[in-house]
Amino acid sequence: MAGYNLKGIEAAPLKDDVDIVIPTIRSLDFLEQWRPFLQHYHLIIVQDGDPSIKIKVPEGYDYELYNRNDINRILGPRANCISYKDGGCRCFGFMVSKKKYIYTIDDDCFVAKDPSGKEINVIAQHIRNLETPSTPHYFNTLYDPFREGTDFVRGYPFSLREGVQTAISHGLWLNIPDYDAPTQLVKPRERNTRYVDAVMTIPKGVLYPMCGMNLAFNRELVGPAMYFGLMGEGQPISRYDDMWAGWAAKVVCDQLGFGVKTGLPYLWHSKASNPFVNLKKEHKGLHWQEDMVPFFQNLCLSKESDTAAKCYMEISKMTKEKLTKVDPYFEKLADAMVTWIEAWEELNPPVKNEAFVGA
Amino acid sequence: MAGYNLKGIEAAPLKDDVDIVIPTIRSLDFLEQWRPFLQHYHLIIVQDGDPSIKIKVPEGYDYELYNRNDINRILGPRANCISYKDGGCRCFGFMVSKKKYIYTIDDDCFVAKDPSGKEINVIAQHIRNLETPSTPHYFNTLYDPFREGTDFVRGYPFSLREGVQTAISHGLWLNIPDYDAPTQLVKPRERNTRYVDAVMTIPKGVLYPMCGMNLAFNRELVGPAMYFGLMGEGQPISRYDDMWAGWAAKVVCDQLGFGVKTGLPYLWHSKASNPFVNLKKEHKGLHWQEDMVPFFQNLCLSKESDTAAKCYMEISKMTKEKLTKVDPYFEKLADAMVTWIEAWEELNPPVKNEAFVGA
Repeated sequence: MAGYNLKGIEAAPLKDDVDIVIPTIRSLDFLEQWRPFLQHYHLIIVQDGDPSIKIKVPEGYDYELYNRNDINRILGPRANCISYKDGGCRCFGFMVSKKKYIYTIDDDCFVAKDPSGKEINVIAQHIRNLETPSTPHYFNTLYDPFREGTDFVRGYPFSLREGVQTAISHGLWLNIPDYDAPTQLVKPRERNTRYVDAVMTIPKGVLYPMCGMNLAFNRELVGPAMYFGLMGEGQPISRYDDMWAGWAAKVVCDQLGFGVKTGLPYLWHSKASNPFVNLKKEHKGLHWQEDMVPFFQNLCLSKESDTAAKCYMEISKMTKEKLTKVDPYFEKLADAMVTWIEAWEELNPPVKNEAFVGA
Repeated sequence: MAGYNLKGIEAAPLKDDVDIVIPTIRSLDFLEQWRPFLQHYHLIIVQDGDPSIKIKVPEGYDYELYNRNDINRILGPRANCISYKDGGCRCFGFMVSKKKYIYTIDDDCFVAKDPSGKEINVIAQHIRNLETPSTPHYFNTLYDPFREGTDFVRGYPFSLREGVQTAISHGLWLNIPDYDAPTQLVKPRERNTRYVDAVMTIPKGVLYPMCGMNLAFNRELVGPAMYFGLMGEGQPISRYDDMWAGWAAKVVCDQLGFGVKTGLPYLWHSKASNPFVNLKKEHKGLHWQEDMVPFFQNLCLSKESDTAAKCYMEISKMTKEKLTKVDPYFEKLADAMVTWIEAWEELNPPVKNEAFVGA
């Protein structure tokens, strides 16, 4: 570990600084298994679909719950930037939180075990990832140099060893891998059984497919860039909510000098979604990603964009300019991105340099 | 595994296509332990230091051995581009080989075991890495998509899934990590005990510290870029031979569209070198790497440089232009780089597009 003091891994580290955001359409029985790790944290539940359905939350959890009626009431006409009948609605929870860190998890995910058989404390690992620096400017071949028992290897410039502040921690999944519909169809029985004991920084200038299933981030640094787009009912596309957020947020992190990590912690993803349903939801995305990825790879933000919100406004403008020719949907998306930032700023009035006062 | 047919892992895969290059100053008893994995391959031993010392090679190995007298005889006045009293002399072996692949290993390295207790076949893994594509244009969060049991995740553009040809496979080390002298001094007892079960592509545009201890590459693709510099006796610097080669070769791979992988296989690095001796050898390098790394990060080669040799000639020119102001040594190094390419081309006359006919 490269000269860095880490807080010990307690049962519920930084519990007053983290909100857990869960999008759901059903009762949250999955939280029973998570008690040892998540019960001490505050939950923000975003109920998708029919607001008249009663969501049951296991006893002992502290939570606030928002259904579509609540979203409409709180955001008014701006509520149209929040997806309906799509997991992308979770970003409403990012907006109403007042905490420094967000952890978001899907309700078909369970506690995984490491190779020694020990249950994995996902939050503790995400916080460790977020509280230690990232190293986006040069690759360390022994992976995360801030981990106990490792360091920077020979040939690593000393001027880069302090690293940069980490904004995003992308965790992985054992059992059901996060495949698209064509890959699911071709390999219906493939399971991820390999535990790769590593966390690494995704280098500056490099994009990756960010999955929202097991994701933590620093909302003070990049919250406004964590918009999960316009997906689901009434839209031509689904299942690209987290991808859109991931590409945009990575570009914003690169612009602002923040780091993005991927790897540990793993959770157990229990249920493969129906590949035929997925194919219908994502078929336009499978096509459009051929334009969306190069769009983000070639984005060059102006130096005036020095906050996540300003970066995001500029990305919205470029989306309209460059992607509308792919499909008129992107014009609507670009407008929703502006609405999202307006709503974010209304709920989170800037307090000096976009740092927010905690709740 | 993303639609790729891999050859099964035999005891000695592609044995007629691989030379093993070993720089040494002593008898090669360490090869006894390697018999199950290396005995079927041809060795090229580059004897460093006093040529009158007799190097003992364990029986049953097929080898050719070159000492300093041989190097002088074969290269004539150009022999001055090959380092003396430094592991960098190994690159002479790359030059006299006629095989497609080179595997180079240090003589203080032994067979490591994977977490199941099975001995690791380093060559088989390196060949697997080299014979499957790399994915330098976008990060796959489940690591190498060409490995059995894994694939490209959701959000990975289909147009990028064929990947590119792999040129370099950088393996890692259990036990003694490859630290510089200051880190060795601060952490004399740190050992690498963590087996990270992954191979990954180092993305395009990203540099890494390449260690020569456990390294394989395709010499037809990048051989001329694998020059280990001017180090050791008569030079102001040591222990940066592999770093120099790694930075230059990565820039060349990025330019030519080839991939570089790091991760598996591990070997067992037995002996920490003396940190005080290392400090003396590398102190200028510790300083100069602050200029060398940005130099390579900002290198922009012309599109006329469409072979490894042409790229390398251009890098030599830029080295002279940009790094001589750091130290006059770099002018000498730049000249040696030209000599290296001249010697390479004399021993490996180009046969149509720089592809060499195998031995």
